[in-house]
Amino acid sequence: MILSALLTSVGINLSICSLFFTLYSILRKQPGNITVYAPRLVSERKLEEGGQFNLERLFPTAGWVRRAWEPSDDEFIETAGLDAFVFVRIFVFSLKVFTFAGIVGTLFLLPINFMGTQIRDNSEFQNKSLDSFSISNVNNGSKRLWIHFCAAYVFTGVVCILLYYEYEYISSKRIACFYSSKPEPHQFTILVRGIPVPPGWTCNEAVERFFMDLHPSAYLSHSVVRRSSKLQILVTDAERLYKRVTHLKHKDNSPQRHRRDGFLGLFGHKVDLLDHYEKTLGDIADNVRIEQSSLAGKEVPAAFVSFKSRFGAAIALNIQEGVNPTQWITEQAPEPHDVYWPFFSVTFIRRWISKLVAFVACNALTILFLIPVALVQGLTHLDQLETMFPSLKGMLRLAVVTQVITGYLPIQILQLFLSCVPAVMIMLSSLQGYISWSQIQKSACTKVLWFTIWNIFFANVLSGSALYRLNYFLEPKEFPRVLAEAVPAQASFFMAYVVTFGWTNIASELFQLIPLFYNYVNRIFGGECGEDFEAPSIPYHSEIPRILFFGLLGVTYFILAPLILPFLLVYFCWGYIIYRNQLLYVYVPKFETGGEFWPTVHNYTIFSLLLMHIIVIGIFGLKKLPIASGLTLPLPILTLLFNEYCQKRFFPIFKAFSAECLIKKDRDNQNNPNMSEFYDKLTNAYNDPALMPIKYTGRFRSHRSPLLSNSRCKTNNTESSSEDMLV
Amino acid sequence: MILSALLTSVGINLSICSLFFTLYSILRKQPGNITVYAPRLVSERKLEEGGQFNLERLFPTAGWVRRAWEPSDDEFIETAGLDAFVFVRIFVFSLKVFTFAGIVGTLFLLPINFMGTQIRDNSEFQNKSLDSFSISNVNNGSKRLWIHFCAAYVFTGVVCILLYYEYEYISSKRIACFYSSKPEPHQFTILVRGIPVPPGWTCNEAVERFFMDLHPSAYLSHSVVRRSSKLQILVTDAERLYKRVTHLKHKDNSPQRHRRDGFLGLFGHKVDLLDHYEKTLGDIADNVRIEQSSLAGKEVPAAFVSFKSRFGAAIALNIQEGVNPTQWITEQAPEPHDVYWPFFSVTFIRRWISKLVAFVACNALTILFLIPVALVQGLTHLDQLETMFPSLKGMLRLAVVTQVITGYLPIQILQLFLSCVPAVMIMLSSLQGYISWSQIQKSACTKVLWFTIWNIFFANVLSGSALYRLNYFLEPKEFPRVLAEAVPAQASFFMAYVVTFGWTNIASELFQLIPLFYNYVNRIFGGECGEDFEAPSIPYHSEIPRILFFGLLGVTYFILAPLILPFLLVYFCWGYIIYRNQLLYVYVPKFETGGEFWPTVHNYTIFSLLLMHIIVIGIFGLKKLPIASGLTLPLPILTLLFNEYCQKRFFPIFKAFSAECLIKKDRDNQNNPNMSEFYDKLTNAYNDPALMPIKYTGRFRSHRSPLLSNSRCKTNNTESSSEDMLV
Repeated sequence: MILSALLTSVGINLSICSLFFTLYSILRKQPGNITVYAPRLVSERKLEEGGQFNLERLFPTAGWVRRAWEPSDDEFIETAGLDAFVFVRIFVFSLKVFTFAGIVGTLFLLPINFMGTQIRDNSEFQNKSLDSFSISNVNNGSKRLWIHFCAAYVFTGVVCILLYYEYEYISSKRIACFYSSKPEPHQFTILVRGIPVPPGWTCNEAVERFFMDLHPSAYLSHSVVRRSSKLQILVTDAERLYKRVTHLKHKDNSPQRHRRDGFLGLFGHKVDLLDHYEKTLGDIADNVRIEQSSLAGKEVPAAFVSFKSRFGAAIALNIQEGVNPTQWITEQAPEPHDVYWPFFSVTFIRRWISKLVAFVACNALTILFLIPVALVQGLTHLDQLETMFPSLKGMLRLAVVTQVITGYLPIQILQLFLSCVPAVMIMLSSLQGYISWSQIQKSACTKVLWFTIWNIFFANVLSGSALYRLNYFLEPKEFPRVLAEAVPAQASFFMAYVVTFGWTNIASELFQLIPLFYNYVNRIFGGECGEDFEAPSIPYHSEIPRILFFGLLGVTYFILAPLILPFLLVYFCWGYIIYRNQLLYVYVPKFETGGEFWPTVHNYTIFSLLLMHIIVIGIFGLKKLPIASGLTLPLPILTLLFNEYCQKRFFPIFKAFSAECLIKKDRDNQNNPNMSEFYDKLTNAYNDPALMPIKYTGRFRSHRSPLLSNSRCKTNNTESSSEDMLV
Repeated sequence: MILSALLTSVGINLSICSLFFTLYSILRKQPGNITVYAPRLVSERKLEEGGQFNLERLFPTAGWVRRAWEPSDDEFIETAGLDAFVFVRIFVFSLKVFTFAGIVGTLFLLPINFMGTQIRDNSEFQNKSLDSFSISNVNNGSKRLWIHFCAAYVFTGVVCILLYYEYEYISSKRIACFYSSKPEPHQFTILVRGIPVPPGWTCNEAVERFFMDLHPSAYLSHSVVRRSSKLQILVTDAERLYKRVTHLKHKDNSPQRHRRDGFLGLFGHKVDLLDHYEKTLGDIADNVRIEQSSLAGKEVPAAFVSFKSRFGAAIALNIQEGVNPTQWITEQAPEPHDVYWPFFSVTFIRRWISKLVAFVACNALTILFLIPVALVQGLTHLDQLETMFPSLKGMLRLAVVTQVITGYLPIQILQLFLSCVPAVMIMLSSLQGYISWSQIQKSACTKVLWFTIWNIFFANVLSGSALYRLNYFLEPKEFPRVLAEAVPAQASFFMAYVVTFGWTNIASELFQLIPLFYNYVNRIFGGECGEDFEAPSIPYHSEIPRILFFGLLGVTYFILAPLILPFLLVYFCWGYIIYRNQLLYVYVPKFETGGEFWPTVHNYTIFSLLLMHIIVIGIFGLKKLPIASGLTLPLPILTLLFNEYCQKRFFPIFKAFSAECLIKKDRDNQNNPNMSEFYDKLTNAYNDPALMPIKYTGRFRSHRSPLLSNSRCKTNNTESSSEDMLV
């Protein structure tokens, strides 16, 4: 790629993004779009739709930037939760790193690269190949490479220092959030699995006897989990029907209410649909009641056990309870609305098998993903298509068609495949036996991360089939050389990738094209359903890997092709403002892990550094500077030692709270007069929602439906979530 | 090697062993040898030296076999401790495994191997090469190899089942021992490190305040560790002098008591040595007192914290105490006499560096050990010696000299090197920051295990330099093929190794040649020192790796050359009886880990199985049976899954006791009237022995000397050891 081509691409993408931003700043002010651009405020009833018209609405303004910028860290955490804060800190951290890298890169490395003469490129400045700006252009054996060597050391040092302070800052926020939180059920509760039930006993009795015996003063209550998969299906059916009924009731006695009761609604008698639905709903409700009463016997050997204090729960959690370590296995309970109930419904052996299947499938998908993609990319070979479909010959020879099929279609199909990956990974993770949605998302996040590295970074760098690439990994000795040859060659591709894919991605995140379109369609065809409105939640498992991947590109290409850094800085600047805006006004958190995504970010950054070191070692080898290559070897070792220290220093804080924290918090609560009320609610906090009694206010109003929808969307932050569940 | 040569070797070694056994059964009955053959009874005062002469003493009898065989498992544990029991269980387990393997091997595999015609060996039966009995003789692509395939599966299954039941049995014994134990200080105590001392406070105050605050009901007392390396040297000096003084006092007023006080005792005035020593001892004792009083300020930020109950200690141990995970780091305290005090004397940063040094040194030693050995083995090239020392030419041409230098010397030098390895590994482990002798021995045991595998198994199998062998490990794909070619070729070498090295080793263990020799010398020159008699303790770190290595040979060669199995069975049979005898009558346990060596044995056996699988996969490939090779692939995976399960099922039991056990034991003790007395003693149990006050009964009788020697040798079993320390 030549310089002018890159600049053209930058220009085009800049104008697309500006267009998006302008449109956004106008459209967001239209009252009709409020469910698209501020659904969070709607769901929290802080803002009503509609309002008076004024002229300002039609002009683009940047007020949203100010509003997204203004809130302080603590205000932001208060509103959006610690997880959202950690998400935004990824941008802050990246901005710090790449500002430093950008200064070093443009002031020192870029001139040195450009002054080299290794690539004989005598064209004019604007027609120069981008390779002239990369390390490939530095002459072999040149003394100037020592500046690159120093840059690698200094950059690694700066990144490590920043990582350390960031980890420390987020740890302190996590502890501060814990101190300022109200009592929440999951702090007092553990999940116990593998309960050995003596013959003649019920699980209920076994749990009570065991904990009353071992922790007589701390034990409060427990609720045994029941196998409720069949019931869950019935309840879902009931809920769907209930929605339809209320929808029909809202409308007048229109002709839509009547339908024939025969095949496809075309034959048979005309019936009132409302009556029909109400009758079915009644039947289902009866079934639910029968099923619920029969469930008493279907106990799963697992229970949520609640304690009177957080420290009491921590004791039971941390000390192996039973003599046999495979029994009485304890685990911290998730927030009540975060529990993944279907997990408990499958039997132990099926869960074990599905865990294995998920593991194998995830690895197979990651490694072999390129096989279907390669088949699709066979489209570039038009001649094969011609022989297969001779009738298309005429059409395929048109220049436009050729360009679309060969140039555009494969990339789009690849993107289509890639966009399915997070959903597939969520599915695989949910098979793996996690007990909460937050754990499923965290696990899926890691899976998508590795998938991205393998299928975007390595796929582009090491071309060839997947199995051919696997071969490289079986010959670790050759690894630095192969990477050093291949990675710089792809610099211009990844620069274009940042500019096109990165920038437009951020802009379209702000613009929310699909919800906007859906909203218009909805308004035109009148499918509104105000009461059931659910604000979306941010899909961390697909967003975090995408952002971190740009970080990986920045770290690995900092030494090789510093020209990529300004584009990345633009990406992270926009990302910072836009995601703050989205998290404050669009997304509603579904759960609160207390910043547990940060260790993933930390580890990934360490991985990026190590990858960079390996490439740099290879590069110095290729550039005939073996001393520099050898002297770089301590760098990955020092980085690993640093990581080891961070794991010791900070990671335990993200796994569990210390005795000091727990006891302090417990003592604070001792003087709280509301605690006895809280204990009462705690006792029922972990009942399976499918087992809640169905009561009708009026004729068919289910008592549990509002509670369910509540638990899904109204858990805006740590404090209110617990209240929602308990009040 | 041919069959008759092997049989000759067997004959020679059998007669050597019989000679040893006969001599032992006579010599052990001589009263003078009682400190060699029953030092344990002497040190426990159960048996006095001397006795009446009778004729039976001069005839070999097998009464010792009966006496070693008789005690039941529980009696054995009672006498020798759980660690010794675990040690003997290695033999029991190996006997079970190799009895099964021996039956399958001799009935099925050996005939099939022998019927093959791959190796064209038409010599008579007794001149047949041993390779005719190995898998190398089976024809390529033969259907009979499927029997080997089945044998691999069945054998792995049987070993896994035996491993499972053995792990279960030892776990149950460990828990039973815990239940039957008296209260011991280390059950109630934890070691806390990284104590943050606020400015103006002492460490003492910080610890007390912190634990009084967090665990007010459970906390009992603590003792802060002090830096006492200088004092330890003084105390050792004092002890040595004290011994000399008592030795001199025992003797009459002999001329030995007088010596000149000048250079080397040759010049100057004649002085009475006793007076001289007593004066010096007095000076040292004064120094010790001064040093002890000045030590009060030299606190190390570490303390032994004792609790009122075992469960209380477990809570403090298992829950991270402080907010900062690098502070208040807790660890289970070792038995008081097992504490490795020098460890506390070095500063943190020196400890960290020495840990790193130990790690690097251990790996370097293991990998590069063969370099000095290769230099020594250069002796086999006599022509080089001749050119270096021309004057030796005449001597070097003598046949005897040649044979000794080329055939005998290198092996002996190699054995000499090898015999130093356990001591070196102990030294490296003690640098690594372990707080107790038992942990140091466990760590050294693992180090010696890997050293043995690398330097005896792989060194013999993959000939060539160490770096050349390292190369194989960097090409994992080639690994099965290389092993499959090399391992069967060494079958006859390892058979000879078992017969010569294994058998004689066991016999000399029984015969105790060196202590016997030392005892005679001592008796002739009259260097006896009855009071200070110390019974030896078994060096687990050198014995366990040796025995397990024979197990590894058996497992890997079971399929390849089943002829090795009968010899191994003889080894394990003898070993079982002889080590039972030694553990009951010779060795005194220095510490009691509660069977924590078993997980090492388990993991090593799993490793042996995996190694066997890799070799078998390679063998089937070489023998042109790729289907069998592919079908063997699930075997290592299944073995790893089995190991994973065992780790989950049993390993936690060896790390810590469960809440159920601890609480039950605590409740048992609540009714014990002696507990308040025990608590009083617990308070002082973890004082540094170097800081104990020196009191003299008479003029120079140190009060602490007996206590020290007590703690070193009189810790015969779990129960009495704690009593010794506390009474």
